[in-house]
Amino acid sequence: KAGPRDELHLEWSKWVLVVVISIGVTFVAYGVSRGVETLADLKFSLVNSYIKTGDFVTAGRMFVAVNAILITVPAFLVTFIEPKAKGSGVPEVKSYLNGWHLHRAVAFRTMVCKASGIVFSVGGGLIVGKEGPMIHSGAIIGALISQMRPEKWQRLGLPYFGFLNHFRNDRVKRNFVSIGCACGVAAAFASPIGGTLFALEEAASFWSTKLTWLTFFGTMIAVLVSDMLMTGGVTIASAPVISFGSFEGPLRDKAYPLMEPYSVLQIPIFMLIGVAGGLAGALFNQVNKWLTKKRQSYILGNPGWQMLEAVAVAVLTALVLWTLAYTSPCIPERDPHSVERNMPLERFACPEGHVSEGATVFYSSLDRTVKHMFHSLHPFSMQTCLLLFLTMYSLANITYGINVPSGMFVPAIITGAALGRFVGEALQSSGYSVLVGDIHAGVFALIGSAAILGGITRMTISIVVIIIECTDNITYCIPIMLTIMTAKLVGDSFNKGLYDLHLELQGIPFLEEDEDLDFASNTARLKVTSVMSNHPVVFSEMESIDSILDVLANCTHQGFPVVSYTEEPTALNQSVSVYRHHGAQDPRVMLYRGFILRSQLALIIQYYLETGSVTPDYQWFVKWYPRHPRTAKLTDKLIKHPPEENWRNQLVDLRPYYHPGAQ
Amino acid sequence: KAGPRDELHLEWSKWVLVVVISIGVTFVAYGVSRGVETLADLKFSLVNSYIKTGDFVTAGRMFVAVNAILITVPAFLVTFIEPKAKGSGVPEVKSYLNGWHLHRAVAFRTMVCKASGIVFSVGGGLIVGKEGPMIHSGAIIGALISQMRPEKWQRLGLPYFGFLNHFRNDRVKRNFVSIGCACGVAAAFASPIGGTLFALEEAASFWSTKLTWLTFFGTMIAVLVSDMLMTGGVTIASAPVISFGSFEGPLRDKAYPLMEPYSVLQIPIFMLIGVAGGLAGALFNQVNKWLTKKRQSYILGNPGWQMLEAVAVAVLTALVLWTLAYTSPCIPERDPHSVERNMPLERFACPEGHVSEGATVFYSSLDRTVKHMFHSLHPFSMQTCLLLFLTMYSLANITYGINVPSGMFVPAIITGAALGRFVGEALQSSGYSVLVGDIHAGVFALIGSAAILGGITRMTISIVVIIIECTDNITYCIPIMLTIMTAKLVGDSFNKGLYDLHLELQGIPFLEEDEDLDFASNTARLKVTSVMSNHPVVFSEMESIDSILDVLANCTHQGFPVVSYTEEPTALNQSVSVYRHHGAQDPRVMLYRGFILRSQLALIIQYYLETGSVTPDYQWFVKWYPRHPRTAKLTDKLIKHPPEENWRNQLVDLRPYYHPGAQ
Repeated sequence: KAGPRDELHLEWSKWVLVVVISIGVTFVAYGVSRGVETLADLKFSLVNSYIKTGDFVTAGRMFVAVNAILITVPAFLVTFIEPKAKGSGVPEVKSYLNGWHLHRAVAFRTMVCKASGIVFSVGGGLIVGKEGPMIHSGAIIGALISQMRPEKWQRLGLPYFGFLNHFRNDRVKRNFVSIGCACGVAAAFASPIGGTLFALEEAASFWSTKLTWLTFFGTMIAVLVSDMLMTGGVTIASAPVISFGSFEGPLRDKAYPLMEPYSVLQIPIFMLIGVAGGLAGALFNQVNKWLTKKRQSYILGNPGWQMLEAVAVAVLTALVLWTLAYTSPCIPERDPHSVERNMPLERFACPEGHVSEGATVFYSSLDRTVKHMFHSLHPFSMQTCLLLFLTMYSLANITYGINVPSGMFVPAIITGAALGRFVGEALQSSGYSVLVGDIHAGVFALIGSAAILGGITRMTISIVVIIIECTDNITYCIPIMLTIMTAKLVGDSFNKGLYDLHLELQGIPFLEEDEDLDFASNTARLKVTSVMSNHPVVFSEMESIDSILDVLANCTHQGFPVVSYTEEPTALNQSVSVYRHHGAQDPRVMLYRGFILRSQLALIIQYYLETGSVTPDYQWFVKWYPRHPRTAKLTDKLIKHPPEENWRNQLVDLRPYYHPGAQ
Repeated sequence: KAGPRDELHLEWSKWVLVVVISIGVTFVAYGVSRGVETLADLKFSLVNSYIKTGDFVTAGRMFVAVNAILITVPAFLVTFIEPKAKGSGVPEVKSYLNGWHLHRAVAFRTMVCKASGIVFSVGGGLIVGKEGPMIHSGAIIGALISQMRPEKWQRLGLPYFGFLNHFRNDRVKRNFVSIGCACGVAAAFASPIGGTLFALEEAASFWSTKLTWLTFFGTMIAVLVSDMLMTGGVTIASAPVISFGSFEGPLRDKAYPLMEPYSVLQIPIFMLIGVAGGLAGALFNQVNKWLTKKRQSYILGNPGWQMLEAVAVAVLTALVLWTLAYTSPCIPERDPHSVERNMPLERFACPEGHVSEGATVFYSSLDRTVKHMFHSLHPFSMQTCLLLFLTMYSLANITYGINVPSGMFVPAIITGAALGRFVGEALQSSGYSVLVGDIHAGVFALIGSAAILGGITRMTISIVVIIIECTDNITYCIPIMLTIMTAKLVGDSFNKGLYDLHLELQGIPFLEEDEDLDFASNTARLKVTSVMSNHPVVFSEMESIDSILDVLANCTHQGFPVVSYTEEPTALNQSVSVYRHHGAQDPRVMLYRGFILRSQLALIIQYYLETGSVTPDYQWFVKWYPRHPRTAKLTDKLIKHPPEENWRNQLVDLRPYYHPGAQ
């Protein structure tokens, strides 16, 4: 039916939609980022005004109080407005792309709560990141914009092009969610390729060059727009919304050292860091799983406790960080012209001419601390690195799971950076560099981040590319890859990735890839009998309204096979497409014809209700998508306003509607 | 049957095999690269020895003669030894990964001829690149190593692990070919991510995170090993086998300018270059298609003409380049301390204190010329750029299709670099930079390369990533992507990509991705009747040896449906799985049961021949894979040595062998 002109129109609609989605996602990401900055600036300048007077007791109290107050906002949003806004959102996106319709996971309210909540979570000093929520918001924007009804487009004053109706179905919606999610990654990390691969890896479905190219186009627009927003001008050099400082390229802060080549002899060290990351990640996930179970038993469902827990964690975090910053030893300030002063340390509570490593890393935003670990030429003491690692590791663990929006990327990166920097500083001071070539502690921090990130999330190729792109650093591709591989291998031998664990704990099924798809060792090990019910609920090709309503009311399945009946054929009935009817005394066998969805059946009856006819066309289903009336309501209405006397026996011909595939 | 221990063993076998394949591919790529260098060095130093004496006539004659002689080698290899070694090999790999078994496309002899031939093609001064053949060689190595028989492993003194037998089937072989091909790309361009995406884009099949990760691991090893080979040491910074000079990163030649940020206002110019690239690419493909058709009519099948044509093209190329180098105007040499002397020009036939732009770009290896276009700060004259563009564009066109191994990447890159540099120099000299910010002619050359590459090959995401990785340049991701997108869009409105055109001309079918998979506009437009034969050749579930041999001898199909017969069932026969038997007078209908391959049938008969039984087990098929005996031979043997008297009527039960899917 569709002519070449329509095809072209449809084609253009897609690209236009991707641009709109991409810009939308970027603006949300940018808004979150600026919100966090503004909030943090206000908080630190308030506390700093007390520090300047030397009144550290009041300053400390202010610090704790402000953080506690800020955290009430996201805790309130998640507890009372939209529980789906909790946590990182990556597990929700993952399960959605995997085909599981999690209720309200891609709803407008969820996005609003998530995006505004994360501003206060991060601004309130929790050990959380804002990228997970950005990715989730991106996915939601992809769903919302692509599925908008004509009425809404017109109400918003936007030009409506008729072809958007073609996008209103599950499969296409999922494609746009995947594009939105990719744009979220891209905007957050300035990572167009990483974003595209993230969507592919998480969705784990069919590779389509066209969809990939469309996704890549979206991520690219996202990077371009976020670049323009961040630099406030027309000069572009990939400025990420979240930046840990570029290791290479024109935007590299000239104070940062250029990335150096590495020696093959360092690779075993990188892999050992990978092992450490895998172990630490597995332990992290195990403890967090235990904590989450405890939370589910004691706190879940009690709003008061949930609010209290969030605030308690915020107070604890603020107290710990403040104490560590305050009690950290003071060291003499370096010569102001020394190369090691490329990123000056903070003075905080130290006497004139002295600075404190502890205050620099603990009394600061997380991003800034990561930058110190990655780029500072100052030789951090091993104690500071170790303390930072342990603190962040424990705080991040108790934080992930409280009732606020909270991402896991930055906590993992900061924990890993501390671990890696620790190794780097240890090697540097031990003179080990004679054996393996120059040691750059910042590089080890980067590798450490990759290790912990791999150990906790167990993601693979997309994480490698995201790290490369967000640090503008193509040189360390191989070490990063090897480290993540090692971390994943070690971690996987203990437990699942954090996102998968949380999906499991929430009871959400996840369809894993089938290894055998690629490397079959034996022929199909799965037997038909193990997936087939002995007494399937089936429909004939012609069914009465009454029997349809009966099945819909008494069976919760979302779809049903449609069969036709035949006399027993002469050949052996061993094919999957022929099976015996339930009653063994019935001599007929059923021939499988196709599959019909609950929603289709409900909508056919709704059509019958409204028009008296049982042959709705395709547009009818599109119009209702993704909703369909409930069975009880349909039955009620039919009883009250029957379209014809004998409605119960009205036959419905299912043949035009069932899906003949899926045998 | 397989226990967890076996699974682990199988898992490890894969990774080990990938390492072996990866190292193999890299050594071949490195060998080709060194071979080309050595040959070119010898040739240029021979000719230079005459140039030094000022005898340009003899030097020119030598140049032409040496090139002509060198080209006889690849022409001989392709014409007389292995015709499949001709051309780039990317179309062959593409069609193989797409599921088409091109005879000898992944054979050992093809690889030897291709790898050794390309050394002489490039060394002999043709306008060809060595990457396509490297990729093809990589794919072949993937096939060869993964499919090696136990005997061969042992003969080579390698430890044989039993699980390799599990890899001996079409699907797994294709996976390893795809990994080998990715390693080829990675080794050639130092592009691990680009190589992985190349394999995904060309194969266009199911996305599997595990396979992708395994591929990425392979490409990474390839880059690591090629890095160690190239630098001859342990310091790694991604040195590609083929280098056009790094724009960023630690390995960047300090003489090259650092990549600069760009202005959004330059993006329209980049897109215009994309339009030009699309148009030029479409014209290139159209002319090359016409040329190929002419070749197929007049030259194909005549070895003498094929050899002569190759030598003639070599002579023509050498003559044109030499003449252009010789007649190019001399310009005064710059101040030796000037920044513009970052890459000195050649003096060639110019008087003392003068240099020649023409000699620099025409009398040089192609890689070196590309580096000049990308990185030189010397303001090349617009005439030189235009002349370079036109020369390379025409020579590349007549060259692609002659009977030698020949890649298309470098010709496209050099043509595009000349075009882009032309635009850059024009903008720079016109003072247009006031409007759009600093113009860097080298950046425009890079964009031009992307445009022509996109316009000719029509590849998408993988080409973008390859260009980014092989120039160590993450900053220009977005301009490169937009340019390629524009070029592809423009080009696609005229004709197909070069590789697809050549597949078409060779009559090889290619299964395109189905757009509707992603964005369905209407429901399935393909009717069953349009793909179904009216009188299919079918087997019953029990067939006699005689009738099997009869069908195999008289029908060339590679596989056959297996059916069972039944009386006409009562329901309407509208399902695809039920169709009427050929003779309309036959009242029975056939029930589709499954599908059996010609090779399976032939091997069952072979088993019968050897053992007298018709029930071979799975190992029997594995042992023979991928070969099977010819029908005529089987019939002969059966007649000569019948296993039993009444062999013609021996019934074979096909039920354990047919594939019940594929309905």
